[in-house]
Amino acid sequence: MTEPRGPVDSSRVPRFAGPATFARLPRVDEVERADVAVVGVPFDSGVSYRPGARFGPSAVREASRLLRPYHPGLDVSPFEAVQVADAGDVAVNPFDIREAVETLEGAASALMAGGTRLVTIGGDHTIALPLLRAAAREHGPVALLHFDAHLDTWDTYFGAEYTHGTPFRRAVEEGVLDTEALSHVGIRGPLYAKKDLDDDHRMGFGVVTSADVMRRGVDEVSAALRERIGGRPLYVSVDIDVLDPAHAPGTGTPEAGGLTSRELLEILRGLAGCDLVGADVVEVAPAYDHAEMTAVAASHVAYDLVSLLAVTEKH
Amino acid sequence: MTEPRGPVDSSRVPRFAGPATFARLPRVDEVERADVAVVGVPFDSGVSYRPGARFGPSAVREASRLLRPYHPGLDVSPFEAVQVADAGDVAVNPFDIREAVETLEGAASALMAGGTRLVTIGGDHTIALPLLRAAAREHGPVALLHFDAHLDTWDTYFGAEYTHGTPFRRAVEEGVLDTEALSHVGIRGPLYAKKDLDDDHRMGFGVVTSADVMRRGVDEVSAALRERIGGRPLYVSVDIDVLDPAHAPGTGTPEAGGLTSRELLEILRGLAGCDLVGADVVEVAPAYDHAEMTAVAASHVAYDLVSLLAVTEKH
Amino acid sequence: MTEPRGPVDSSRVPRFAGPATFARLPRVDEVERADVAVVGVPFDSGVSYRPGARFGPSAVREASRLLRPYHPGLDVSPFEAVQVADAGDVAVNPFDIREAVETLEGAASALMAGGTRLVTIGGDHTIALPLLRAAAREHGPVALLHFDAHLDTWDTYFGAEYTHGTPFRRAVEEGVLDTEALSHVGIRGPLYAKKDLDDDHRMGFGVVTSADVMRRGVDEVSAALRERIGGRPLYVSVDIDVLDPAHAPGTGTPEAGGLTSRELLEILRGLAGCDLVGADVVEVAPAYDHAEMTAVAASHVAYDLVSLLAVTEKH
Amino acid sequence: MTEPRGPVDSSRVPRFAGPATFARLPRVDEVERADVAVVGVPFDSGVSYRPGARFGPSAVREASRLLRPYHPGLDVSPFEAVQVADAGDVAVNPFDIREAVETLEGAASALMAGGTRLVTIGGDHTIALPLLRAAAREHGPVALLHFDAHLDTWDTYFGAEYTHGTPFRRAVEEGVLDTEALSHVGIRGPLYAKKDLDDDHRMGFGVVTSADVMRRGVDEVSAALRERIGGRPLYVSVDIDVLDPAHAPGTGTPEAGGLTSRELLEILRGLAGCDLVGADVVEVAPAYDHAEMTAVAASHVAYDLVSLLAVTEKH
Amino acid sequence: MTEPRGPVDSSRVPRFAGPATFARLPRVDEVERADVAVVGVPFDSGVSYRPGARFGPSAVREASRLLRPYHPGLDVSPFEAVQVADAGDVAVNPFDIREAVETLEGAASALMAGGTRLVTIGGDHTIALPLLRAAAREHGPVALLHFDAHLDTWDTYFGAEYTHGTPFRRAVEEGVLDTEALSHVGIRGPLYAKKDLDDDHRMGFGVVTSADVMRRGVDEVSAALRERIGGRPLYVSVDIDVLDPAHAPGTGTPEAGGLTSRELLEILRGLAGCDLVGADVVEVAPAYDHAEMTAVAASHVAYDLVSLLAVTEKH
Amino acid sequence: MTEPRGPVDSSRVPRFAGPATFARLPRVDEVERADVAVVGVPFDSGVSYRPGARFGPSAVREASRLLRPYHPGLDVSPFEAVQVADAGDVAVNPFDIREAVETLEGAASALMAGGTRLVTIGGDHTIALPLLRAAAREHGPVALLHFDAHLDTWDTYFGAEYTHGTPFRRAVEEGVLDTEALSHVGIRGPLYAKKDLDDDHRMGFGVVTSADVMRRGVDEVSAALRERIGGRPLYVSVDIDVLDPAHAPGTGTPEAGGLTSRELLEILRGLAGCDLVGADVVEVAPAYDHAEMTAVAASHVAYDLVSLLAVTEKH
Repeated sequence: MTEPRGPVDSSRVPRFAGPATFARLPRVDEVERADVAVVGVPFDSGVSYRPGARFGPSAVREASRLLRPYHPGLDVSPFEAVQVADAGDVAVNPFDIREAVETLEGAASALMAGGTRLVTIGGDHTIALPLLRAAAREHGPVALLHFDAHLDTWDTYFGAEYTHGTPFRRAVEEGVLDTEALSHVGIRGPLYAKKDLDDDHRMGFGVVTSADVMRRGVDEVSAALRERIGGRPLYVSVDIDVLDPAHAPGTGTPEAGGLTSRELLEILRGLAGCDLVGADVVEVAPAYDHAEMTAVAASHVAYDLVSLLAVTEKH
Repeated sequence: MTEPRGPVDSSRVPRFAGPATFARLPRVDEVERADVAVVGVPFDSGVSYRPGARFGPSAVREASRLLRPYHPGLDVSPFEAVQVADAGDVAVNPFDIREAVETLEGAASALMAGGTRLVTIGGDHTIALPLLRAAAREHGPVALLHFDAHLDTWDTYFGAEYTHGTPFRRAVEEGVLDTEALSHVGIRGPLYAKKDLDDDHRMGFGVVTSADVMRRGVDEVSAALRERIGGRPLYVSVDIDVLDPAHAPGTGTPEAGGLTSRELLEILRGLAGCDLVGADVVEVAPAYDHAEMTAVAASHVAYDLVSLLAVTEKH
Repeated sequence: MTEPRGPVDSSRVPRFAGPATFARLPRVDEVERADVAVVGVPFDSGVSYRPGARFGPSAVREASRLLRPYHPGLDVSPFEAVQVADAGDVAVNPFDIREAVETLEGAASALMAGGTRLVTIGGDHTIALPLLRAAAREHGPVALLHFDAHLDTWDTYFGAEYTHGTPFRRAVEEGVLDTEALSHVGIRGPLYAKKDLDDDHRMGFGVVTSADVMRRGVDEVSAALRERIGGRPLYVSVDIDVLDPAHAPGTGTPEAGGLTSRELLEILRGLAGCDLVGADVVEVAPAYDHAEMTAVAASHVAYDLVSLLAVTEKH
Repeated sequence: MTEPRGPVDSSRVPRFAGPATFARLPRVDEVERADVAVVGVPFDSGVSYRPGARFGPSAVREASRLLRPYHPGLDVSPFEAVQVADAGDVAVNPFDIREAVETLEGAASALMAGGTRLVTIGGDHTIALPLLRAAAREHGPVALLHFDAHLDTWDTYFGAEYTHGTPFRRAVEEGVLDTEALSHVGIRGPLYAKKDLDDDHRMGFGVVTSADVMRRGVDEVSAALRERIGGRPLYVSVDIDVLDPAHAPGTGTPEAGGLTSRELLEILRGLAGCDLVGADVVEVAPAYDHAEMTAVAASHVAYDLVSLLAVTEKH
Repeated sequence: MTEPRGPVDSSRVPRFAGPATFARLPRVDEVERADVAVVGVPFDSGVSYRPGARFGPSAVREASRLLRPYHPGLDVSPFEAVQVADAGDVAVNPFDIREAVETLEGAASALMAGGTRLVTIGGDHTIALPLLRAAAREHGPVALLHFDAHLDTWDTYFGAEYTHGTPFRRAVEEGVLDTEALSHVGIRGPLYAKKDLDDDHRMGFGVVTSADVMRRGVDEVSAALRERIGGRPLYVSVDIDVLDPAHAPGTGTPEAGGLTSRELLEILRGLAGCDLVGADVVEVAPAYDHAEMTAVAASHVAYDLVSLLAVTEKH
Repeated sequence: MTEPRGPVDSSRVPRFAGPATFARLPRVDEVERADVAVVGVPFDSGVSYRPGARFGPSAVREASRLLRPYHPGLDVSPFEAVQVADAGDVAVNPFDIREAVETLEGAASALMAGGTRLVTIGGDHTIALPLLRAAAREHGPVALLHFDAHLDTWDTYFGAEYTHGTPFRRAVEEGVLDTEALSHVGIRGPLYAKKDLDDDHRMGFGVVTSADVMRRGVDEVSAALRERIGGRPLYVSVDIDVLDPAHAPGTGTPEAGGLTSRELLEILRGLAGCDLVGADVVEVAPAYDHAEMTAVAASHVAYDLVSLLAVTEKH
């Protein structure tokens, strides 16, 4: 078996030169097969406030030029450990949410078919539903670790079932989630009604608020999450608005009082050992970003998710 | 008959204070009836590139705080000449274009029913179709003067009939336009194919390119437009991207080589005497704006359109 | 007694549509009476460095479109518990600080007359003095909890008594504060001289620095504050520059090393049970903001203050 | 007599290094005497909309790092022809307009006393009044060429006589202007009432609108201006908002439809031969600027004014 | 011979999806051969003021997503007429200008070897020298049409021969230019000394200033340029700072008073019929850009240059 | 001995007026001698990603207008305790790194010759090498406390020895560091290879990661650092990218997960008692900054370093 093909050598080609594939990795068509693929979904027709996440994949890839190959926190060189490749974008219909969801489900299933695990860059949170469907097809109902300021378990908006506020209710209804192991992390800000929390609880979600993270510390939080997840196949979904607007201004539904990027990354690193089967990072809206701050944070999140997959794959 | 109620007195309430109705005018519910109403349509689900025009109405109203009551170019005090009021926003479904188009058509018809003429602030250009339908219901097929970088007479995108690139083809097909008097002004930039121009020509459109405006001058251009329009009821639709990105960065589909705001305003002023029955200014996307430059330009365009309606109404 | 009228229903009118009253609540003229009123004071002629807070009320209201009706941290639906309304802006003279202070004092007293409690959005910190005068007229000398990077107990600048650096010295001199219960939270950065601290201490202020908050944690800090405040009528004044520039770039006198928005909100939530009688959030200067980050934080602060008043009122 | 001391040599010290005196010229205390002095007035308490011009002098000086010593349009090396120096800023009271006006009048008179001619960088337009007073003291009533979007001949705002909208009415009333030779260039946008124009006309002003400049061309415009000015001592006052917001976003009262920077500079160059005795460029508000665009334009305007003074002085 | 392969179909893949090759064209490795190649040179170590043009190629390609396949001004579908492809970036040493110049010369020669004509996206203007060397190797000394605010015929800076201010002096010295047909267009702003112009003239350059373009109009200017160029092989070098900062804020050495993007594009279109053999567009510094305005303008310039090459090739 | 001359009195000259020397202190030529000098090095030719730090000294000085004379955390008025002055910028060759390094070494040595201690404002991190050489010449090999996201002990890039990623390897090789007391604080983000850490360790560096600071707290961290440093002469080098991009967006190589400005300032204050002999704060790239947030943080860092030197000097 051939050695994985890694990123372009930045001692020969400056980081600011050449095409912006994720982390300057090869395209999926340049390698025989990919253990892990990074794929973009430029879609934002499911948002309820600021649109713009359609430009997220391109912005996160540009910011990922700065990533380097060795992850000291997890002590792994993910691009050597497994073959990681950039699978490009899935083109979906911006004018028909239902069709977009179906197209993405098909494309994700096709990518996963040969055993490839995906880290998906959104796009708005609507895309988590088809990604979870595809993951469940491969792995059965999955545990979910959901980083977000918002619950995203609302029912419908303006009669629409599939929006960025509803993917996890749909996923529970469709049975693609393992309701024994569902967690939100980073929740904060006002809700529509107390019923939102009751419904969410009834679906099986546990909630770690943003203030809980501050009070309990990242190590206690990640230990509790690991415990809840156990050996189940795990899907991690990161809405970048889990970060405080200070760390992630470039997003569509900002809420004050969020996590720092350091907290988010350290909690993720605490998941080493879990059986991660897929992940996404969504809701990067570059028009509201500054100096690529949000895109840089998202690219680090994606890199950590890839590294966790590399650790998982190797075991 | 009572005197029209004008804007808040800025010698007593600073321009930066108080609610941002258009030009600080009364709300429509504060006056008995309105001769002219300014209405917002915060909708951008029909865009093919950068979204964000859903925030256009709010941004244009904020920028309109700077407008004053006397128009020296047209020698009219529009808010004294007729009753102008702010009719608020029409709330439409962001997740279903077809429903949004129907809602808007109904709302516009209701507003126009008593003889009120509308200046609509978008939102994306999709909204021109229902607005033209409503105008034609009142006035019969209308002449169209369309300021834009783009033709907007394409057929469908991703199977969608109603988008910001197709309103005028639909309008021609539906017979709501008077095909003897259709003009585009400010066209520039690359097209998909030569056929785009041929189709457009067949529908009856004349084209004044942005370069034509530079070469011929605003007075010759507006004389030719007036000639073509004659005594027909006229609808003016202004896509703010008719301006160069230097003048209107805050828009969704920028093209280099556009009009200056001075040219646009002077051409509009050259329309005095035409029977203007309705107008819109669309595609202001504030997330891409700087220092309200685009919103200021759009608010001046809206003010000139209101002033033209005031002149028309008075005759 | 009628049920309080709440915000516009965002499942029917998108959050980005309609007028930007605070939290999309009714205007004060649309309700019979208001238990709590949110009022803007667009005034910044008292600043010593970057002006621009005159645009604060408008920006905070725009950002407040995102607020929802249920506060999970305090377990209250403030807009159901009491009638909250938007009282618009107080128009004050931008060219004469003394006159502006008097106008505001009168307007605030008039608003409070019927028992309405105010959350005021500035404007610069000069406005705290007339607001405290009005509060003291209703409630006697009040306890003060002051969140700020700066002491704001300086004497005069360029001979001016009333500026954004002096309101609390004036308030102490005028006897409108209860000097047994005065606290600054978030203080940091260099001072003019050691005497600044000595004077401040002599007026009765206790100081919790920004570094203290980091070292002691929010729960210990709010417990100590609650203890000091006791059952006294309490006024809370939040200068948004208490936040680090990372969280609140849109302000006039930034100092590195500040609070996070999470800390500020959690300390505020720790005040439940206090007899809050009025509050303000000031010094939002939108020209320096990015992606509404500062305005979003300020709108959350205002929402928490309204929620605390709702809890207080209900008791 | 010694050779004038010129700017720092940019082939030895990069333009981005060293202190930002205007054009990297010597400070006034480094030369024996100055024929022309560039002086800043960081004052913006007279504005009616967006404040921020207090940071104008600093921003214009930073942008002036790019200026080079030879003016090809006027064929002069102004810093060799005469001694030009940077006189720093006049510190004025930000809280008391009347005192600020007096301080500035005194400072300007002192600077002019030895025959030095001033190019002043604002600051808001309030400062033109004391500068005209000082100029008239030296030269008698002066001709005025006023570039602006606005007339600035209003009477009072909120009872204040001295604001950025009133300097030229005051100056006419005080007799410091030669009413035979008063011109506005670049006027556009709505006014309060027709009476504004009538009053202005009665004071003696001629108006060249922004649209006139487009229609007539810069050469015809400057010829007409030169004719009107004749041999009179001339003061030129440039409100940077005479430029379109595309060219000068960084200002307080933007109006669409303005001049290009090329037009403004060419009209100025057409004034060679006039007896220029002083000049200002005002209303640069850096918080609204982008990439120093406005400050660069203002620095070029100041450079052209200095060059005109150099030509004048040499004759 | 196979049909040229064109851009990705934007009716199936939204413009905001997929990799950002220039105009979404195929990579050079995806086609058999390219008649025209677009190549990036991310290099800015030769700048004297604001760096950042190293990010130019990436930004211009992102902005080129908006380009469509038919050029109505030249009545050509360039991507059908000839095979155009994206040749990626040439990686050069950012720490050694001399080595970078050599690397680029070699890479450009290699690309041109099979008859491919290049449109190069900079990068700073230093790169014009090696590009001209390579062009001259293929075509002999070439006519030069140089759009710029600056002459770029200075000698050395800080002892460095190869900088962005010196390429054309070097090129004349090396004999790679045909000194009978050298023109600058758009020159403006102050110079170091009158000698700059004299030297420039002696090298053979004609100068059309920015003010000349305004006074004479684009048609007269392009006719004169065509006349001067005649049938010679022509290289066109466009420094984006030839545009006014209003149109191109994202550049390193801004000068007020520049061309509009409409003027630049129309002059370029006036070159149809010339024997264009290569071209570049340089000095786009995205950190100073806003809403991609500069990158959009540069992408249109590149598209026009490609279209001119397509017309030339076809003849 | 004369009293130290302090900053301009801000009760007479507003902070926004007058020249932007550091903290509005006298220039070094205005005082007899300086105990501490603040000096700028506008140089960024050693960067591997985003350039722009050449504008750092100017931006940090502008931001330092807000600094006041008394440091409550260290209980010192540094400008009274010792004579602090602004030594201006060292002009170095932007086109030749090696020459720039030599020029700076000479200039720094000259400044230090009379016993002056330097706080240097960069510029990129390349400049630390010549500054350490100069410090070692005065004080012998120095202890190093290095705040940074990156190790900066790499070997070469593109063959260049002197870059912003290599100064501390060079310094170790040259023997100017005391390898018993070398610490990095704030390290995070991916590396090229595990070997990076091994090499770094072998050179003698201890590493406190950014996550360590969160877990251990600032007091434990600074105690450990003080312990390691002991009585050795200490040089502190602060790369502003040690801060999270939320706190310091204006830098060239951002990494998510960084320190807060509060943590950095508190750790620095924990160094009181160490024998600080020199310091720098580098990598402020203003083009990427927002609302001076990064420059304000850097100016506070510089102020704390000056204050530590004042405390040291006084002992």
